[in-house]
Amino acid sequence: MLNSVPRLLASAVVVLALSAPAAQAQVRRKAKPAPAAAPAKADKTDSLALRKLFDEALLRGESYENLRYLTNTIGPRLSGSPQAQQAVDWGKATMEKAGFDRVYLQEVMVPHWVRGGKEKGEIVGNKGKEIRVAVCALGGSVGTGGKLKAGVVEVHSFEELKNLPDEAVKGKFVFYNRPFNDALIEPGAAYGGAVDQRALGAAEAAKRGAVGALVRSMTSARDDNPHTGTMRPATIPGAALSTMAADQLSQLLKASPELQFELEMECTTLPDEKSYNVVGEIRGSKFPQEIITVGGHLDSWDLAQGAHDDGTGCVQSIEALRLLRAAGFKPERTIRAVLFMNEENGARGGTEYARLAAQNKETHVAAIESDGGGFTPRGFNLEADAATLAKVAKWAPLLQPYGVDDIQAGHSGTDIEPLQATVHPKALIGYKCDSQRYFDIHHTAADTFDKVNRRELELGGASMASLIYLLSKYGL
Amino acid sequence: MLNSVPRLLASAVVVLALSAPAAQAQVRRKAKPAPAAAPAKADKTDSLALRKLFDEALLRGESYENLRYLTNTIGPRLSGSPQAQQAVDWGKATMEKAGFDRVYLQEVMVPHWVRGGKEKGEIVGNKGKEIRVAVCALGGSVGTGGKLKAGVVEVHSFEELKNLPDEAVKGKFVFYNRPFNDALIEPGAAYGGAVDQRALGAAEAAKRGAVGALVRSMTSARDDNPHTGTMRPATIPGAALSTMAADQLSQLLKASPELQFELEMECTTLPDEKSYNVVGEIRGSKFPQEIITVGGHLDSWDLAQGAHDDGTGCVQSIEALRLLRAAGFKPERTIRAVLFMNEENGARGGTEYARLAAQNKETHVAAIESDGGGFTPRGFNLEADAATLAKVAKWAPLLQPYGVDDIQAGHSGTDIEPLQATVHPKALIGYKCDSQRYFDIHHTAADTFDKVNRRELELGGASMASLIYLLSKYGL
Repeated sequence: MLNSVPRLLASAVVVLALSAPAAQAQVRRKAKPAPAAAPAKADKTDSLALRKLFDEALLRGESYENLRYLTNTIGPRLSGSPQAQQAVDWGKATMEKAGFDRVYLQEVMVPHWVRGGKEKGEIVGNKGKEIRVAVCALGGSVGTGGKLKAGVVEVHSFEELKNLPDEAVKGKFVFYNRPFNDALIEPGAAYGGAVDQRALGAAEAAKRGAVGALVRSMTSARDDNPHTGTMRPATIPGAALSTMAADQLSQLLKASPELQFELEMECTTLPDEKSYNVVGEIRGSKFPQEIITVGGHLDSWDLAQGAHDDGTGCVQSIEALRLLRAAGFKPERTIRAVLFMNEENGARGGTEYARLAAQNKETHVAAIESDGGGFTPRGFNLEADAATLAKVAKWAPLLQPYGVDDIQAGHSGTDIEPLQATVHPKALIGYKCDSQRYFDIHHTAADTFDKVNRRELELGGASMASLIYLLSKYGL
Repeated sequence: MLNSVPRLLASAVVVLALSAPAAQAQVRRKAKPAPAAAPAKADKTDSLALRKLFDEALLRGESYENLRYLTNTIGPRLSGSPQAQQAVDWGKATMEKAGFDRVYLQEVMVPHWVRGGKEKGEIVGNKGKEIRVAVCALGGSVGTGGKLKAGVVEVHSFEELKNLPDEAVKGKFVFYNRPFNDALIEPGAAYGGAVDQRALGAAEAAKRGAVGALVRSMTSARDDNPHTGTMRPATIPGAALSTMAADQLSQLLKASPELQFELEMECTTLPDEKSYNVVGEIRGSKFPQEIITVGGHLDSWDLAQGAHDDGTGCVQSIEALRLLRAAGFKPERTIRAVLFMNEENGARGGTEYARLAAQNKETHVAAIESDGGGFTPRGFNLEADAATLAKVAKWAPLLQPYGVDDIQAGHSGTDIEPLQATVHPKALIGYKCDSQRYFDIHHTAADTFDKVNRRELELGGASMASLIYLLSKYGL
C-alpha cells in the first residue's frame, strides 16, 4: 500500500490501517501501450527531457506568483483600460526579467468599451412591486439612456423568435432563456450550443422592434453571478441575467405574463485606443527562421481579475519559455511567447499578429494557445491535417506519465487561428485542461486568483513546454 | 468554431470574433483507437447504456443534494460520535428512499477518540516570547496532561532520528519536517512518501525518550490548516503543525536551537462504541449470488465536514445504484452499496464486512471504492491479476467519451482490501479522479461542501455506475 514505508514499519502499517485514499497509491503509473513509437534512444532522451521540465515547474515554477501579481495587483484589464496598459508593461518586464533573447511590442488599435457606473435590473410586478435581480451589460452593448422599462417575451431559440407575431415582440425585451445542455460531457460544447443567444440576441431582437435583450448567463451553474461577454453591435441594449435571475424571471412570467422589466445601464463605446501585443522570443539554435508560437490573451473582462480567463494562459506561455531555458535546453527552432491583446471583444491582437507574420514573411511551424483556464492538464486539440495529427499523437506516450496525453482534432484558439490564413502553420494547437469548473466562473466576478491551484497551473506550463520541446526538436 | 451556430449567423460570428475558449469547441471527441474490442453490437448497446447513465447523472443526479445534507446538516462524523450515528441513520434512510431491494446495518465496534476542548501550540523564545502556531492533535494521540513544554529537535527521516545521540532527543519534542516531494505528479504518491512521519513519528520518538512528536502536515500546500490523521498508539502525544507553522518553527530553530515548544491538548480515547456499516442491495436478476460491492467510508475526521473525504464516495456509491435503476437496468449480478464505518482510524468496518462475507459464504466478483475525493473522473486502479486487468482495460473505449478511461494496476481502497483475504474477488477497484487539489484539504478544516463541484461529483457516480453495469453484464 505505502510503497515507500520501510519494511521494519510494515507491521505497524498493518496494525494502523492507515487512511489510504485511492489517490495515494498511484506511485508508479504504468504507461499505456504505445502506438507506433519513435526510436527507443530518442524516447529515453525525450523522456528525461520532459521529466526535467516538469521537475522545474513543480519545484521552481514561477507561473503562480506571476499570476498573483497580474490578478491581485493589476486586476481587470479590458481592452483600452489603464490596467490593460499596466498588463502590457508587466508582460514586457516579466519577459525581460526571464532573460528572453528579444522582447518587443506590436501595436494594435483596440475598441474601448466601458461598463459605466450604473447597472441595474428589476422585475416590476402589477402593483409596482420591484424585485432587484443580478444583471450585467454584455460587452459592446449600448446604454439604456436612463431607465428602460418594458414587457418581456421569453424565447428559447431564434426559430421561436421568428415565429412570434410582431405585436408579441415590438416594444418589449426579448428574454433568451435556453440553458446549457447539461448532458454534454464537455462544458465547452454546451457553451457552443448556447452562446449564439448572447452573441446575436440583441441584434436579432432589434430587427423585430424589441427595446432590449435579456440573456440567460452562459453557465450550467445556478447562482447569482451574471456572465458578461461580447455581443454583436446592436441598436438596442443587451444584458446578461444570472441563472438565478433568469429562473426567477421565467417563473414570474408564467404567473404574470404582463410583468415588466426595468433595465438601467450606462455602458458606452469610446474611441479606439492604441494598445499592444507583447512578444518574447528565444531564438532557435538550428532553424531560427522557423517559429513556434505559444500564447494567451492579456486582456480580460472587467468584472473580476481575469484569473482563469486568461491570466493563466499568459503566465503559462511565459513560463513555458522560462522552463525550457531553466532546464538547460536550447530550442532548435525559434520559440515565441505572445500575450495577445483584445481577444475578448475584437480579436484584433491575434489578427495583427497574423498580419505582421505574413508581412515579415515569417515561417510558422506551429502555434499553441492556452485559453481554457489553468486547471489540470488533459491534452491538446489540433487544427491540422491527418498526417500532422498522427505525428503529434505519436508523442502521447511521452506525455502519458503526466496525464496530458489526450491528443485529438479540435479547436485551437481565437488568437492563433488567424495565422491559418496568413502563414499556414502545420498545426494550430489548443492546450486542453479539465474544464468542468471553467464555465462556473467564466466572465464573472468570480474569476479570481484564489480559484487557481498552483500545481494545476504549473503542470500546464510544463505540459506546453514539453510539447514545444518536441515540436522544436522534430519539427512537423 | 461554434459548431451549432446556424449558417445565417456565421458571418456575424466572423465579424464578432467571439471569445472562444479552447474548452469550447470539444464538441465531438473522437475516440482513441480501440484496443481489441468487444463485438460491435455489444459495443453499441453498452455505449448507449453508458450514455443513459451519464444523462441521468448530469440531468437528474442526486449525489450533490445528498452530499449537501450529509456535510452541512450532519457534518463531522468521527467514529463513535453522535454525528456518526446520525450518518448511519441518514445512509439507511437515503437508501430506503432510493428504493433498493434490501437495506440493512452491520454492527461494528469502533474506537472512540475525542479531540477535547483545548488544542494549542506555541513556539517559546529565549525571553519568554510566545508565538502561537496552528496545530491539531493526530488521531488516537494521548493528551498532554496540561501544558507540555520542551526543546525541539528537527529530523527529516527515521534514519536521521536513529543517528542522533540520546541526549539530543531525550526530554524533547521530535519535529518531523520532511515535506511532500512536490516533483511527483500524483499527490497520492507524495503522501505515501511522507505519511510514515505522521503514522509512526510519536511511537518512534517515544522509544528515544522524547516527550512528544510534532509533525509537518501532509500536504504540499503552504497554509495555516493543520492536517489531522491517524497515528500508531504511543505513550507520548503527537500533533500536526500547519505547513506554515512547520516552516516557521524550522526557521526559528536554526536561529535559536534552544527554543522551546509548548503543546497543550486534551484529546483522549474513550471506550469503544457500537456503530454500523450501512448496506443497500439491488438483487441480481440472473446471478444473484454473485456480488459487486461499491462503497465509500461514512466516518470522517472531525475538523470540518468530511466532504471530499469521504462524503463524496458515500453519495456516489448510493447514486451508482440509483442511476442503474433510474436508467431502467436490472443488473444481472447483485450490486451492493456499502457505507463503511471507521475507515479513518481502525478500518473496522471494512474488516467486519469482509469477515461477514466469508461467514455468509458469499461469492464476490469485484469491489469498487471511492475514497479519493469527488473531483473530475480519470479512471480506475485495479488490484487484480493480469488477465482480469486486461479484461477491464478492454472497456476503456466505452469510457473514453467520458474521460474516465485511465485503467491501470494500483491501490483500490482501505475498506475493500480486507475482502482479498476472505472472499478473494477477481478485482478490487479504486475509483480514480483528479487529485491535484485533494491533499490541500485532506483531513483539514477546509474539507467542506463548497469544495465539491456538482458536475464533477455526478460524473463520478456515473463513472462508477458504468463500470458496475459492465461488471454485472460480463462478469470477470
